[in-house]
Amino acid sequence: MTTSKEQLEAILQKSLEAFVIIKKHSIQQRVALMRTIADEIEAIGPELIATAKAESNLPEARLTGEKARTIFQWRSYADALEKGAPLDASIDTANAERTPPKPDIRKTSIALGPVAVFGASNFPFAFSTAGGDTASAIAAGCPVVVKAHPGHPETSWIMAEAIARGVKKSGFPEGTFSHVYFETNEESQFLVSHPIIKAVGFTGSYRAGTALAEISAKRPDPIPVFAEMGSVNPVFLLPNKLEASAAELAKQYAGSLTLGVGQFCTNPGIVIAVESPALETFENALEEEIIKIAPSHMLHAGIAESYEKGCKKLTTQPGVEILAVTETEVLEGQGGATVATVSAQTFLNNDALQEEVFGPFALIIKCENIDEVISVGGKLHGQLTATLLATNEDLAENEELIGLVTDKCGRILFNNFPTGVEVCKSMHHGGPFPSSSNSQFTSVGSDAIKRFVRPMSFQNWPDEFLPEELRNANPLGIWRTVNNELTKEAL
Amino acid sequence: MTTSKEQLEAILQKSLEAFVIIKKHSIQQRVALMRTIADEIEAIGPELIATAKAESNLPEARLTGEKARTIFQWRSYADALEKGAPLDASIDTANAERTPPKPDIRKTSIALGPVAVFGASNFPFAFSTAGGDTASAIAAGCPVVVKAHPGHPETSWIMAEAIARGVKKSGFPEGTFSHVYFETNEESQFLVSHPIIKAVGFTGSYRAGTALAEISAKRPDPIPVFAEMGSVNPVFLLPNKLEASAAELAKQYAGSLTLGVGQFCTNPGIVIAVESPALETFENALEEEIIKIAPSHMLHAGIAESYEKGCKKLTTQPGVEILAVTETEVLEGQGGATVATVSAQTFLNNDALQEEVFGPFALIIKCENIDEVISVGGKLHGQLTATLLATNEDLAENEELIGLVTDKCGRILFNNFPTGVEVCKSMHHGGPFPSSSNSQFTSVGSDAIKRFVRPMSFQNWPDEFLPEELRNANPLGIWRTVNNELTKEAL
Repeated sequence: MTTSKEQLEAILQKSLEAFVIIKKHSIQQRVALMRTIADEIEAIGPELIATAKAESNLPEARLTGEKARTIFQWRSYADALEKGAPLDASIDTANAERTPPKPDIRKTSIALGPVAVFGASNFPFAFSTAGGDTASAIAAGCPVVVKAHPGHPETSWIMAEAIARGVKKSGFPEGTFSHVYFETNEESQFLVSHPIIKAVGFTGSYRAGTALAEISAKRPDPIPVFAEMGSVNPVFLLPNKLEASAAELAKQYAGSLTLGVGQFCTNPGIVIAVESPALETFENALEEEIIKIAPSHMLHAGIAESYEKGCKKLTTQPGVEILAVTETEVLEGQGGATVATVSAQTFLNNDALQEEVFGPFALIIKCENIDEVISVGGKLHGQLTATLLATNEDLAENEELIGLVTDKCGRILFNNFPTGVEVCKSMHHGGPFPSSSNSQFTSVGSDAIKRFVRPMSFQNWPDEFLPEELRNANPLGIWRTVNNELTKEAL
Repeated sequence: MTTSKEQLEAILQKSLEAFVIIKKHSIQQRVALMRTIADEIEAIGPELIATAKAESNLPEARLTGEKARTIFQWRSYADALEKGAPLDASIDTANAERTPPKPDIRKTSIALGPVAVFGASNFPFAFSTAGGDTASAIAAGCPVVVKAHPGHPETSWIMAEAIARGVKKSGFPEGTFSHVYFETNEESQFLVSHPIIKAVGFTGSYRAGTALAEISAKRPDPIPVFAEMGSVNPVFLLPNKLEASAAELAKQYAGSLTLGVGQFCTNPGIVIAVESPALETFENALEEEIIKIAPSHMLHAGIAESYEKGCKKLTTQPGVEILAVTETEVLEGQGGATVATVSAQTFLNNDALQEEVFGPFALIIKCENIDEVISVGGKLHGQLTATLLATNEDLAENEELIGLVTDKCGRILFNNFPTGVEVCKSMHHGGPFPSSSNSQFTSVGSDAIKRFVRPMSFQNWPDEFLPEELRNANPLGIWRTVNNELTKEAL
C-alpha cells in the first residue's frame, strides 16, 4: 500500500502530463468535472461513513454532516468558478492616440501547476482527500497529488476512488488526481521538493506545517505552502456582557469547547476576562457544565495521548490552577474536558501557556483590569479566530483592544462561537502566523481557489487566442473589470 | 546621514504608533492622503529632475515621463481604493432557519502592518522612494519605512520630503512614512527581521532579493517578501512572422533592447528562432542597427562595470559568437549595445547563458527546428515577460510552445515589446521564481495594493461597528459580493 519513490516519480510525471491537457480544457469543463466529482461522492454507499467512523471515532451524525459539507464545497466552488469569481478577469483597452500608444492588456488567473495536498485527521472528509484543498486546487486547474492521512487510510481510498471515477467520467486525464500513501518524512520531502510540484496545501500541526515550509524554502525555486496550523482562539469576556449573562455564557462556552471532543482548529481554548463577581459566576457555572460532560474517544490513540500530555504540561505550570475536570472516569483513548485558571501576570511571563492543547482544554486568564486584558491581547500569537462576548457598549468602550485583537486573527466574532467554519465567500480561515503560514489566503470558502492560481497578463493578444474569459464577446457571461469598471457586457 | 540602529528602532516604534492611528482613519481619508501626496510630488520644482539627472545619468525627457508615471500611480491607486477594488468586500447574510443556523459573515481586506520598502536604482521615481511599493502600501493602510537607494540619495530625500508634507497636510501621523539611509547589510537585516515590520517590498537584483527572503524565513514569524528580481524576457521569433518581416522586426527589437541603455527589468535579452534565411536577414538587419547605436552612460559606475563583466562572461562562453557591437568607442561608465549568438544545443547545456546581463545585451539562440525552440522554452527560468513575434498562423501552429511559455512568465506579449510596463489594473508585473519571489502578486498596477492587505472576516458583528465597506447601507457605494452576487445595493 505504501507508495515508493519510484511510483511517486511516475505519478508526478502523470500529473505534469495532465496539467498540459487540463490547460486546454474550458472553464465549463472544469466546472462540470467538479460537479461530477460531487455527485460521485454523494453516491458513495454507507461504507464511507462506516469506514470513517471506525477509523476516526467520530460519530455518525457528525460524519453525515461532514459528507454533506464536503459535497457542498465541490459544488459551491464550482459555482464560484462558473461565475468567474476566482479569475478576477480584467481588460484595459488600447488607446492608439495616447503618447506613447497604450497597448491592449488583459489579465486573468491561471493554474500554478500540480499541487501536493496533505489532509488533516480531524475532518476525514472536508479537510482530507476530497476536502477543500483538493477541491480548490482542481477548481484552479491544478492536478492534485493527495497524500492519504495515516489516521484514516481506508476512508481516503474510498474518497480517492470516487474522485477518480469523476475524473474519468468527465474526460479529464487520469493524472488530474492521484492518491499516494507513505509514512515517513523522506517521501514528503521528495514530494514537496520535486520540481513538478508548484504548491502545497496542508492542514495539521505547527510542527508538520513549518517543516513543509522549510522544505519549500530550500528548493531552488521556493513554492507557496498554504499550511493551516491551528490556534488557541481566544475568547474575550467583556465586562458588561459578563455582568448581564455570566451563567448563560458559561453554558454556551462549555458546549463550544467540548464539541467534537475539542478537536477543531477553531476550538476556543483561552478565555480572557477581568476578575469580578460576575467572572466567579461564570467560573462556577462553567465548572458545573464541565464536570457533567462525559469524555469521548478522540480521533486516535496518539491524539488522546498528546492531549493528556498537553493538559498535564499546562496544568502543572507554576500559578495554574485546575478549575474543573469531567467527573466521569476517562478511559484509554478518550479526552476529558479540563478547565484551568491563571493570572494575567503569570500568563504574560510564560510563553508555554499559549501552546495549543488539541482537545477540550481551556485556560481562563484572570486580569486585574482592562489594561491587563489589553496586555494579554498584545502578547497573543497569530490566531485563526478571536471571539468577543460583549455588548455594544463593551465594543464602544474597548476600541484599542478590538484594534489589537483584529491584528492577531483572521476572523473576529461577536457573541458567536468560532467552532463552526461556514463554507462561503465571506469566510476567512487563515490568520497571522503561526495559525497559518500565509495570512493572505483562506483555506475555507470559494476564495480558497485563489491559493492555487496566479495572475497572467496578455498584451496585444489576438482575440481568438485569448482565454475565453478575456475575449471581447465575454462568452462566459462573467463579471469583468473593463477600464476600471465592473461589467458583464461584451466589448 | 546614515540612520543608526537606535534611530531605526525609534522610527519603527513611530510606524507602529502610526499604524494604530491609521486604522481609525476612513478609506476616504486614505484616498485623500494619496491624492495630496500626488499633488505634493507634482508641485516639486525643477530641482527634482535636475538632481535625479545628476545622480542617475538618466535623460531629462525620461525623468519627466517617470515623474508623471509616479504621480499617476498615486492617483490611480487612490481611484482603485475609492472604488473598493482592493478590498474585495463580501457579505453572506444570516439564515436563522437553516440547521444549524447560518451566521452573518462579512469579509474585507485589512492592512498587514508597517512595510519596509527597498527601491530600485533604475527608476529613481517610479520604483523608489515614492514609487509603486510605497504608494500601494499606503493605499493598503500600512505605514512605510523606505530605505533610500544609495544610487540616488538626494533624489530620495526630495521625494521623501514631498511625501512627508502630504502626510502632514492630510492629518495623518508622522510615522505614516519614514525615510532611512544606510549602506550595510546589518541594518537591512535589522529592519527586515524587526517584529514591527510585517511585509517587504523590493525591486532589484536576484542576490539582494533572495537575501531579504532568507532573512524573513528565519524570523520566528516569517513575513511576505515581495521581491521583483528581473529576468531575461525571452522573445520568440516564430517562422511565418520572421519570414514576412525580418528586417522590420530587427529594427523594432534593437529599439526595445537598447532603450534606456537596456536598464529595464523587462529588457528583452534573449531571442529564440529557427535557423533560416529569414533569420539571417534578421541578424544582418540587427547588426546594422546595433553598430549605429551610440553607447550612453549607465545609472552608475557599478552598473556599467557589472554590465561589462556580464557581457564578457557570456560572450566568452564556449560556442558563443559576437554578432554585433556598437561601433562607437565605449567610455568609462557607459554601456555599449552587444549582440551574440549561440546554438540551442549549447544554450541547453550551459545554465550560465541564462544569467541576466543588466544592460543592452542580447543573446540570439539559433534552433535547428521548432522542437529545439520548445526545448529552449522548457529550459527557461521564470520570467517577468515573454514575447511572441508571430502571425495568427504561428499561434495556431504552436499551441504546445505557447502553453509552455505561459507557464514561465507573468505577462505574454504578441507583436509588442515588453519594455513598457503599463500602469493599469490588468498589468501583471511579477512572474514565476526567480523573476519574482511571489508570482501571485503584481508590483505594478492597482492590484499591487493587494500585496499589503490580508482578508479579515467579521462574524455576527454589529453594523455600526463594522468597517464602513461592510455596513448594510454601503456608505462607500462600492461593489460588494452579497450572497455570491456582485452588487452596489445596500442591504
